[in-house]
Amino acid sequence: MDKLYKELDGVYEEIIKIRRYLHQHPELSFEEKETAAYIADFHMKLGHKVRTNVGGNGVLAYLKGDKPGPTIALRADFDALPIQEQTDVPFKSVNDGVMHACGHDGHTATLLGLAKVLNSLKSEIEGTIVFLHQHAEELPPGGAVSMIEDGCLDGVDAIFGTHLQAQMPLGEIGYRTGALQAAPDRFDIKIQGQGGHGAMPHDTKDSIVIGGQLINNLQQIVSRRVDPLDSAVVSVCNFVAEGPYNVIADTAELTGTVRTFKEETRSFIEQEIENVVNGTCEVSGASYEYTYTRGYPTLINHKEETEFVAKVATEVPGVASVDETPPIMGGEDYAYYLQHVKGTFFFTGAKSPDWDKAYPHHHPKFDIDEEALLIAAKVLGKSALEYMKEHAKHSLNEVR
Amino acid sequence: MDKLYKELDGVYEEIIKIRRYLHQHPELSFEEKETAAYIADFHMKLGHKVRTNVGGNGVLAYLKGDKPGPTIALRADFDALPIQEQTDVPFKSVNDGVMHACGHDGHTATLLGLAKVLNSLKSEIEGTIVFLHQHAEELPPGGAVSMIEDGCLDGVDAIFGTHLQAQMPLGEIGYRTGALQAAPDRFDIKIQGQGGHGAMPHDTKDSIVIGGQLINNLQQIVSRRVDPLDSAVVSVCNFVAEGPYNVIADTAELTGTVRTFKEETRSFIEQEIENVVNGTCEVSGASYEYTYTRGYPTLINHKEETEFVAKVATEVPGVASVDETPPIMGGEDYAYYLQHVKGTFFFTGAKSPDWDKAYPHHHPKFDIDEEALLIAAKVLGKSALEYMKEHAKHSLNEVR
Amino acid sequence: MDKLYKELDGVYEEIIKIRRYLHQHPELSFEEKETAAYIADFHMKLGHKVRTNVGGNGVLAYLKGDKPGPTIALRADFDALPIQEQTDVPFKSVNDGVMHACGHDGHTATLLGLAKVLNSLKSEIEGTIVFLHQHAEELPPGGAVSMIEDGCLDGVDAIFGTHLQAQMPLGEIGYRTGALQAAPDRFDIKIQGQGGHGAMPHDTKDSIVIGGQLINNLQQIVSRRVDPLDSAVVSVCNFVAEGPYNVIADTAELTGTVRTFKEETRSFIEQEIENVVNGTCEVSGASYEYTYTRGYPTLINHKEETEFVAKVATEVPGVASVDETPPIMGGEDYAYYLQHVKGTFFFTGAKSPDWDKAYPHHHPKFDIDEEALLIAAKVLGKSALEYMKEHAKHSLNEVR
Amino acid sequence: MDKLYKELDGVYEEIIKIRRYLHQHPELSFEEKETAAYIADFHMKLGHKVRTNVGGNGVLAYLKGDKPGPTIALRADFDALPIQEQTDVPFKSVNDGVMHACGHDGHTATLLGLAKVLNSLKSEIEGTIVFLHQHAEELPPGGAVSMIEDGCLDGVDAIFGTHLQAQMPLGEIGYRTGALQAAPDRFDIKIQGQGGHGAMPHDTKDSIVIGGQLINNLQQIVSRRVDPLDSAVVSVCNFVAEGPYNVIADTAELTGTVRTFKEETRSFIEQEIENVVNGTCEVSGASYEYTYTRGYPTLINHKEETEFVAKVATEVPGVASVDETPPIMGGEDYAYYLQHVKGTFFFTGAKSPDWDKAYPHHHPKFDIDEEALLIAAKVLGKSALEYMKEHAKHSLNEVR
Repeated sequence: MDKLYKELDGVYEEIIKIRRYLHQHPELSFEEKETAAYIADFHMKLGHKVRTNVGGNGVLAYLKGDKPGPTIALRADFDALPIQEQTDVPFKSVNDGVMHACGHDGHTATLLGLAKVLNSLKSEIEGTIVFLHQHAEELPPGGAVSMIEDGCLDGVDAIFGTHLQAQMPLGEIGYRTGALQAAPDRFDIKIQGQGGHGAMPHDTKDSIVIGGQLINNLQQIVSRRVDPLDSAVVSVCNFVAEGPYNVIADTAELTGTVRTFKEETRSFIEQEIENVVNGTCEVSGASYEYTYTRGYPTLINHKEETEFVAKVATEVPGVASVDETPPIMGGEDYAYYLQHVKGTFFFTGAKSPDWDKAYPHHHPKFDIDEEALLIAAKVLGKSALEYMKEHAKHSLNEVR
Repeated sequence: MDKLYKELDGVYEEIIKIRRYLHQHPELSFEEKETAAYIADFHMKLGHKVRTNVGGNGVLAYLKGDKPGPTIALRADFDALPIQEQTDVPFKSVNDGVMHACGHDGHTATLLGLAKVLNSLKSEIEGTIVFLHQHAEELPPGGAVSMIEDGCLDGVDAIFGTHLQAQMPLGEIGYRTGALQAAPDRFDIKIQGQGGHGAMPHDTKDSIVIGGQLINNLQQIVSRRVDPLDSAVVSVCNFVAEGPYNVIADTAELTGTVRTFKEETRSFIEQEIENVVNGTCEVSGASYEYTYTRGYPTLINHKEETEFVAKVATEVPGVASVDETPPIMGGEDYAYYLQHVKGTFFFTGAKSPDWDKAYPHHHPKFDIDEEALLIAAKVLGKSALEYMKEHAKHSLNEVR
Repeated sequence: MDKLYKELDGVYEEIIKIRRYLHQHPELSFEEKETAAYIADFHMKLGHKVRTNVGGNGVLAYLKGDKPGPTIALRADFDALPIQEQTDVPFKSVNDGVMHACGHDGHTATLLGLAKVLNSLKSEIEGTIVFLHQHAEELPPGGAVSMIEDGCLDGVDAIFGTHLQAQMPLGEIGYRTGALQAAPDRFDIKIQGQGGHGAMPHDTKDSIVIGGQLINNLQQIVSRRVDPLDSAVVSVCNFVAEGPYNVIADTAELTGTVRTFKEETRSFIEQEIENVVNGTCEVSGASYEYTYTRGYPTLINHKEETEFVAKVATEVPGVASVDETPPIMGGEDYAYYLQHVKGTFFFTGAKSPDWDKAYPHHHPKFDIDEEALLIAAKVLGKSALEYMKEHAKHSLNEVR
Repeated sequence: MDKLYKELDGVYEEIIKIRRYLHQHPELSFEEKETAAYIADFHMKLGHKVRTNVGGNGVLAYLKGDKPGPTIALRADFDALPIQEQTDVPFKSVNDGVMHACGHDGHTATLLGLAKVLNSLKSEIEGTIVFLHQHAEELPPGGAVSMIEDGCLDGVDAIFGTHLQAQMPLGEIGYRTGALQAAPDRFDIKIQGQGGHGAMPHDTKDSIVIGGQLINNLQQIVSRRVDPLDSAVVSVCNFVAEGPYNVIADTAELTGTVRTFKEETRSFIEQEIENVVNGTCEVSGASYEYTYTRGYPTLINHKEETEFVAKVATEVPGVASVDETPPIMGGEDYAYYLQHVKGTFFFTGAKSPDWDKAYPHHHPKFDIDEEALLIAAKVLGKSALEYMKEHAKHSLNEVR
């Protein structure tokens, strides 16, 4: 396996070049035409079989090893965010209001560099590698569902992927069996009161007062109704009731997000919000509209593949520690892949040892230590090769 | 009329003596046996026809003037309060935990002194005077209703009464046509949640959290639902949910009072509290019991009688000013009399010019300036005599 | 006085014509150039001395009677509202989004018609009449202040004015000594929390949750802190905290109105809101900005002038009843005039007997019964003439 | 090892007899004189060295094996609860208002039965066994602290204990490395408002309204301020503000419990409650008293001992499954022992297969399947013997 690491060290500068190019030319979710073309071109030059426009802007590239074995998908997403970059890097975004502020540029550069190296190791590969370049991870409904519907997992036995974590120190790998990332849902509530003159509240149903009571009452879902040993978030993120300063608002509109790990908790909260809204509106004789929109499912890592990667990672050069990570409340549409095939998703620390603190993901000053890309490529590449080797044997055994 | 004032000046010392005796021997509402006997004895000694045990401990005494004319009732209440007196007066209550802390001792002394004087003016009186000594004003259902049922207003054409006001300066008389005192109602709410271990809120319906939301939501009745030009109070005065420090309470019990002047507002609030309780309990799937108990009605003074007394009062010696008083939110079962016969109820200032501030009614240090008793007797006595004279003429006119 | 009524009957059709013309050509507050020109032109044609651009778009016209006497101002406002008219009247507004939805067209037509008639009665007039046409009543700071600063009340002894009331039956005149209309103030609150990811509330200070608590807590000002016998309104009319559905808002902005009659209550609430905001923000360690902007003062009618108009009104043909009106919570910058000179402001019923219900003021379907203009002109005209006559005598007496 | 199981089967009836005797004669925490005497007597009859009145009513008994080895403590608690038993068992509590409603009778019977058997196996025991009978587990400050101070852990190398769980099926053993039971703290809040007449709220500081706001605001600690991946409970369990129905309460007293697993969360909440109380009281200008009383610490099991017992348990007859259990929010003063010596605390399922549902601990109808006592004795006994054997070898090895 030394060869893999050595060759990855050899393409490290190219990986950085790719990442910086992508960083400079970010594209919003579902609009990543040029990035997709860039990726497809890269793989075509390597001679990989390529499928474009997979479920949208998705790109698939296939590398068939010279030896028989299973089919493994490696996934990287490539969309950017509607954020105005505020860093001082020389490869700052040239697209106004668009920025790679979540590290997807790094994911893609990692996978392309790895593809180049694996291509060179073709003769030793026992099975097929699918380079799964996914568009639109940031914006529900996401790109994963449509890529799956368009066949991206056809024939795939297992999938591996990673996310660079700007707040996790460089050299750390975080793994977790079971729930790793929460299901991120959305709710919309419209309180229909009855507007009127600010001086005559008794002739109105004051939608702002009802809204105030509602915000308060919603707190009890997490504080009183969900098992304290479970994790859940109910956040009202928007509250809009507008008009002249002296006219009581007719309606108040609230929007927010719910985060859960368990399906039963998710369903319970979906219903419980309505109970709270309904009772609160009854207090004032108001009516309401309520919509609950499910986002990505909870990302649930498979036990065998997670432990496999965790074990492999401990031996990868540059990896200082491999730890079980707590789950995070943010969502990830990688979750869909794991509903179809075995696999795991892990975190790669990308906080430079030179930084006191790192800006959080989605921040206009977000940045990563590029050395993390090399580490990610090594863990991902070695995990894939080892997993294929082991399962190739199994396959043979099974055949016999 | 000078004679009335002069004779009242003559019995002033006796009035004070009576008041101090009564103050020293207070009795709780519905338990005023000895006070009633004292009153009855006083009138009997004057030769008045007396009825005792009227609707309970009530006492009626009749003084028939030598001339024909209408029948006028003068009312004074005589019950005391369950308060431990904290004054330093030499005639301090000898009954532990019982105190004349609302001036009813003064009302009674005033009426007895006036009775003695009027008795001496019998030859000039044009009609009949009923001395209406009412028990149990402080404690619903009050004594007025049962005394009325027992005939205390039979044949009565009009009624007059006054309340000594410790916070109104001596020498002031306050009158008001229409609503003078609010209807004081009571509500009881029991929230039936579901208790449980304080560490496992999700297995409970937390009656204290529901109660907290309820208290908040109830504020909107006055702040949002009642016309700001109307007056209303909704006060939660008790909140009890008890048990060990780590056991979520099964039930929370709230008790409070509502004050209104208008019947429609009263009925609206009675219903609106239930709406708020119902919606608030629905938020958490709890149930409730709700009882609304009407206290005394709003005290509504009659226009003619009120203006009559106001005019008479301006000429009474000792009266410095006669002003329209704002209504007060406290209740008074004198209200019932005014539902049956014409009449008025007015306030007599009793705050000594020597006092910087007066303790409020029902305070353990409550006190009055005794000179107010003389003024009250004069206004009450002169109003009765003048009113009788004027209506005697009318009666005659009507007869012809 | 019959002559006044007769002549007003004679110009009634012209009054209606004027009103309809004005209704069709409404102009927003502070932009009433053409209306002002129309008014000035009307008076100039009558030969009145005219001052234009008084404190802005205000117009003053002077009619000096042939006899000596006091100077009386009659005020009518002439601005319209930013409302899209939705009536079906043939003289519907031709100015998009602008509408006379508060009756100021009627006020002006009334005063112009009355001016024409009074002009014809010049020989009998004992004193001087100032026709005070005020711009910008609807929009603080209003036109009254600047017109006063520009001298509109110079030499004026008393002022009279009326407001057409669409919800008061035609034929009714409403008067009130003392506080008639509330002081309409405005408050702006900005809660500065700390935004963040909707999935990580513990890293934020949730400005919406703080805002919800604030709305609830503000209710107690009216429900608990203001004397129930006083009148006050605190309405939060706007609540805006915006952003993506999954990002906890950094700030929440609340705007609303306060209505009071008493200066001490006004100041108390101004301070009390800040107490509530301050404590509520402390609960979460958030900061805030708070601005309280005083609008017009409470409109306080003078006793003598109010009773004078009330008495005069009872004899005016077309007036069915003259009643003491309860105060209203809406503001009116006529209040400023009454801080400088004696006078009164009264209500003229304008709800047609043919209507089941009338649309409220400021409603897109607002309308009035035009007969109210004739009645208003008669009450206003007769009050002015009688008041001048009475005070002319006094003046003479004083002179002697 | 078969001998241990066989002999335990032999004393099973005696274990049941002991348990039923203890159940019938329960004693409250810190008052367990007779129970302590019963236990001491039992051990003395076996010839064990006994120490009584250890840190109060605690009892220690020592069994020195014939072979050298480590010293192991086995702990059982023996206090009962202030609950009136409502079961129908023939051995129902004869002490009014006192009940073994948490299974401590079973714990003690288990340990006594096990002591008898271990005594008979003395020749094979490699080390010393300390039978640690603890009083007062139910009532802070608990008996553990004083027993430790009185030397109960002197010379002890490791400690093992179990809790019967009425809601866990018979045959299940639950283990957990790290935090198993939460730190159960208590808080007391007194809101000092200003009482007054229910009809005059503006003259008061309404402690019930403040309390209502406080309850609401406290919800945000768990819903907004604690990391959703952490576990915490803040429960207000008492709210008392009493007095007449029409008198606004002067003070409101709230008591409740906080449950946390992490020290930093515990300290954060202790401070955060005060922030919320302070801000909420400022809203109304009220003052407060706040006391936070720390209960037992979080019970944190040691990894090696926990895994050891879990492994041993899998082979014990009667044990159907051995599972990692989620932590529970209830506290346990066994936590103190684990701060001093290595060890573990595990759960023994005691819900009969014949029951549809089991009553929760501390319920007046609480009951257990007595077969659980035999299983507990076997797991505890075998764990001790095996652990001693293994560590005896180590000791020897170390010696060499």
